[in-house]
Amino acid sequence: MNADTTWTYENFETTGSAIGFRTTRKLDEVQSPFQKIEIFETTDWGNLMLIDGAVMLTSRDNFLYHEMMSHPALFTHPAPKDVVIIGGGDCGTLREVLRHRGVASAVQCDIDEQVTRMAEKWFPELCESNDDPRAELLFDDGIAYMASRAPGSVDVVIVDSTDPVGPAEGLFNRAFYESCFRALRDDGILVQQSESPLALLELVREMRGEMGKAGFGSFATLPFPQPCYPTGWWSCTLARKQARDFAFREADVSGAVLGTRYYSAGIHRGALCLPPFVAQALES
Amino acid sequence: MNADTTWTYENFETTGSAIGFRTTRKLDEVQSPFQKIEIFETTDWGNLMLIDGAVMLTSRDNFLYHEMMSHPALFTHPAPKDVVIIGGGDCGTLREVLRHRGVASAVQCDIDEQVTRMAEKWFPELCESNDDPRAELLFDDGIAYMASRAPGSVDVVIVDSTDPVGPAEGLFNRAFYESCFRALRDDGILVQQSESPLALLELVREMRGEMGKAGFGSFATLPFPQPCYPTGWWSCTLARKQARDFAFREADVSGAVLGTRYYSAGIHRGALCLPPFVAQALES
Repeated sequence: MNADTTWTYENFETTGSAIGFRTTRKLDEVQSPFQKIEIFETTDWGNLMLIDGAVMLTSRDNFLYHEMMSHPALFTHPAPKDVVIIGGGDCGTLREVLRHRGVASAVQCDIDEQVTRMAEKWFPELCESNDDPRAELLFDDGIAYMASRAPGSVDVVIVDSTDPVGPAEGLFNRAFYESCFRALRDDGILVQQSESPLALLELVREMRGEMGKAGFGSFATLPFPQPCYPTGWWSCTLARKQARDFAFREADVSGAVLGTRYYSAGIHRGALCLPPFVAQALES
Repeated sequence: MNADTTWTYENFETTGSAIGFRTTRKLDEVQSPFQKIEIFETTDWGNLMLIDGAVMLTSRDNFLYHEMMSHPALFTHPAPKDVVIIGGGDCGTLREVLRHRGVASAVQCDIDEQVTRMAEKWFPELCESNDDPRAELLFDDGIAYMASRAPGSVDVVIVDSTDPVGPAEGLFNRAFYESCFRALRDDGILVQQSESPLALLELVREMRGEMGKAGFGSFATLPFPQPCYPTGWWSCTLARKQARDFAFREADVSGAVLGTRYYSAGIHRGALCLPPFVAQALES
């Protein structure tokens, strides 16, 4: 092992736990108008992006998150054509969305252009679909963007944001969800990263509560592993505009030739079945 | 937050990642003939046990591991009566095994009595079945114990050990697996903790290879979340003595009134479906 390695930790104050990576050097750093973005080289996880000291992604494990933020929602919707990603500046979710041939347009609206510039430079594999003619990259306020979308013009909204502090705080409340509800067509789906099912269950409950107040009819929280986030166990929450179940187009998954590494019909089915302690907390 | 808190990290050299907990004080420490055992109080995870600096368990998240080390194997076996746990000195796996009313005897054989003494003191909830008349606690070498068991006298062997370095190294090779194979009845099952499905897949492959050389007929690796272990994502590997599938007694699970917090028939079904990248690595 190189003697020049060091350990870079993130201490999660809200969970009382920490995660770290063995790093060899800082590759890049930029202070945008919104936040500080740093890129480190690691010994085992490829490149590592931190925003204001918080781990955003590594080259090695981001596929878990990006696949689960996109495919469950897109295979639950009967025929998604128009997709909006709020946040998602690293472009990994956009790439997964564009694997769906039926998608006609995918707008990615991240407030911070520097996140995308850093991703292009240090995570080019995530940006390989950025030139797809169906993709549109906006660098703007996602809250204002959703409020401005024409009613009934979107099939799936994916909220791929940082935690509910700082720039992303306004993406976790009723006002924002109401904009999403209005912009979605009747069979539309909202999906949002919803933190750790072990350590942050109360936050998931609150999110679902706010979504319900905004009019959404039914909810499903799907857990998945994500080593670089607190507790290594993460989740996304799907909200359907109408109260319907979360059966998905299973037959289409295997026929889709998606090339996913984590997602499959079986993984999707499994994620729909919550552990008893999570189910009890969310359904009580 | 108490100003006296500190962060206690474990750096995992083999994975290049680290996990830590916010701790308030060291509660206890003992140097046994085999290893150093330390207990810390944490702010959010209850008590924390380290062995030679490696995180063994916390009060808060050990249920994930203990439930998955026991129930999938016991519900896959048609009618488990005689169970042996190798390692498992914290007694949490023993407690889960004894939830199965059909189990007539459960022998726990850990080389280090001090692990159990520390568990009794700092994790008493895990030891609440230690006085069950079906339980037998041995403090002895698990390799020698399995070699000495009468052929065809065991239904399920659970290898609940530390990593394959130090005292536990001999629990991951063909010679040990041959002892297990001999001790098991024809419909017997061996289950062993099998490390991270993301970072340590090669180790899982090697384990399955050694089990196969010892005669085991079929294998299933079941992933599950485990925040306190490297990558937060862990697995157990089941090996059947005879080549059979891993269908399990689903109807019995819901009728069992186990009181599990993570395990359920749905979780078991989900865990049997591996993500594509894991399946490819293990089946190639």
